[in-house]
Amino acid sequence: MAKIGDWQDDTALLTFFWPVRAYIEDTDAGGIVYYVNYLKFMERARTEALRALGFGKQFILNQEAMFVVHSLQVDYKKPALLDEELRVEAHIMQLKRTSMIFRQNIYRDDAGKSELLCCASVKIACVSKDQMRPTAIPAVVVEKINLAISSQAV
Amino acid sequence: MAKIGDWQDDTALLTFFWPVRAYIEDTDAGGIVYYVNYLKFMERARTEALRALGFGKQFILNQEAMFVVHSLQVDYKKPALLDEELRVEAHIMQLKRTSMIFRQNIYRDDAGKSELLCCASVKIACVSKDQMRPTAIPAVVVEKINLAISSQAV
Amino acid sequence: MAKIGDWQDDTALLTFFWPVRAYIEDTDAGGIVYYVNYLKFMERARTEALRALGFGKQFILNQEAMFVVHSLQVDYKKPALLDEELRVEAHIMQLKRTSMIFRQNIYRDDAGKSELLCCASVKIACVSKDQMRPTAIPAVVVEKINLAISSQAV
Amino acid sequence: MAKIGDWQDDTALLTFFWPVRAYIEDTDAGGIVYYVNYLKFMERARTEALRALGFGKQFILNQEAMFVVHSLQVDYKKPALLDEELRVEAHIMQLKRTSMIFRQNIYRDDAGKSELLCCASVKIACVSKDQMRPTAIPAVVVEKINLAISSQAV
Repeated sequence: MAKIGDWQDDTALLTFFWPVRAYIEDTDAGGIVYYVNYLKFMERARTEALRALGFGKQFILNQEAMFVVHSLQVDYKKPALLDEELRVEAHIMQLKRTSMIFRQNIYRDDAGKSELLCCASVKIACVSKDQMRPTAIPAVVVEKINLAISSQAV
Repeated sequence: MAKIGDWQDDTALLTFFWPVRAYIEDTDAGGIVYYVNYLKFMERARTEALRALGFGKQFILNQEAMFVVHSLQVDYKKPALLDEELRVEAHIMQLKRTSMIFRQNIYRDDAGKSELLCCASVKIACVSKDQMRPTAIPAVVVEKINLAISSQAV
Repeated sequence: MAKIGDWQDDTALLTFFWPVRAYIEDTDAGGIVYYVNYLKFMERARTEALRALGFGKQFILNQEAMFVVHSLQVDYKKPALLDEELRVEAHIMQLKRTSMIFRQNIYRDDAGKSELLCCASVKIACVSKDQMRPTAIPAVVVEKINLAISSQAV
Repeated sequence: MAKIGDWQDDTALLTFFWPVRAYIEDTDAGGIVYYVNYLKFMERARTEALRALGFGKQFILNQEAMFVVHSLQVDYKKPALLDEELRVEAHIMQLKRTSMIFRQNIYRDDAGKSELLCCASVKIACVSKDQMRPTAIPAVVVEKINLAISSQAV
């Protein structure tokens, strides 16, 4: 299996984070956050990153194209517990014509200490709504991302 | 609050049950099945009851009308635990022009003993797909239910 | 079925609200928020109401007693859509020795207009952790709630 | 990213499958099964594979050790739709002292045609319950798996 840790040294094009609270609905009988639910938390962060760039889901829904998850890899390091507030990062690592790669980390920040609980790499593909075939990411999205990259880079 | 127990003496028009296994995905940090998830189990039983009558979701999807949950009441009595197999009942108690009322019980059957864990009353409304306005339940559905009632009653 | 609307004229002892965003994880193939998930949103509001009073889940977990959902009633009025921000209310209507009743409403506030999507009545029971028998709500919780009631009432 | 397809030529030590129905609870507003939920389906297949070997969750719960998901990779190929019955495979590819690797495929079988919707590689680690440190898979589990491998291999 590829080591997600290979990404560690890469420089993200764009970074974003979103706080998520772990509620009872997110936990399982092991007394911890059910590992599948981290993927929901990560999608919330990607959604909010796009919203911060000006693209609410309604915008996305109005396009001919849509984003779908193409593939993902997750490494679980430590469990999150009930009621903890987590910091979910969404870094754009790669922006191609029909896809994007996000690196996502989930941290617990406590008493000035930051613990990495989970990290992932998520490839998002842009597909046509009618045929689900790969298609170019809408130009306006690419422009906004590039604009944000240049302002963040300064 | 109305006592769901008021239904106990009613005679169901039609009865159906569906077995459901409680997986780790269904539990919470209390070590029990997360109470919200019983509603998913109950919907599975209603869905399978309709399928048993000849109406898969695809049939429902092809109609002008669709079924939505109008209201529900749930009484929680005892918790279900990880890995238990539950018996989920769906009884049609009332069949009207634009709605149906289901009574639903969830039991754990163990060593010849049957324990009631949860019971509910769920009102399903038939609405038009375009406007979400109450509309008559498709005639073919009413006929099949009535046919099943008469054969079960015999 | 009891009409939840009967509660409308009651005066809540204490009111609280919590904003919730509807993400793709919350929706279903009908293109709307899956009706079961409103119960998760309502629990988030109850949890945050208790936290606002000074009781995080960790506090609750450290007690001999715990809160469980005893029963609930929900009326569904209009569906919420993907990406909408909802206002979830949690009103304490009744505070007894071993139980509390919350009335909960979910609203969509849009362009100065407020639409009621869903309302519920949720009875929470306080039970002992070992035997799951009804037990008195911890005195410190009752005190804090009463304190909040008197300051809100002024 | 590692190509999960690299596994295709490997010979599984042990194979198992479990049928799963896609209910409305599993779908999202895109009209398809929410991609995160495939991971729940895959876990159900792993759980049932262990049960078929004689290890219900209760057995697992009684051990000093427990299984946790260490890491996973998923490739999404085609979406599953509401009400479809899916075949979820769980192949044990590797059995080590403290971990196992499962390859998991999800198929839709329709009219004699079999379509691969999703495939994954899931690494399960055996950890001590108290400290969550890697520990040997219980001997009885290893024995049963090896026994099943030899009888399946014949």
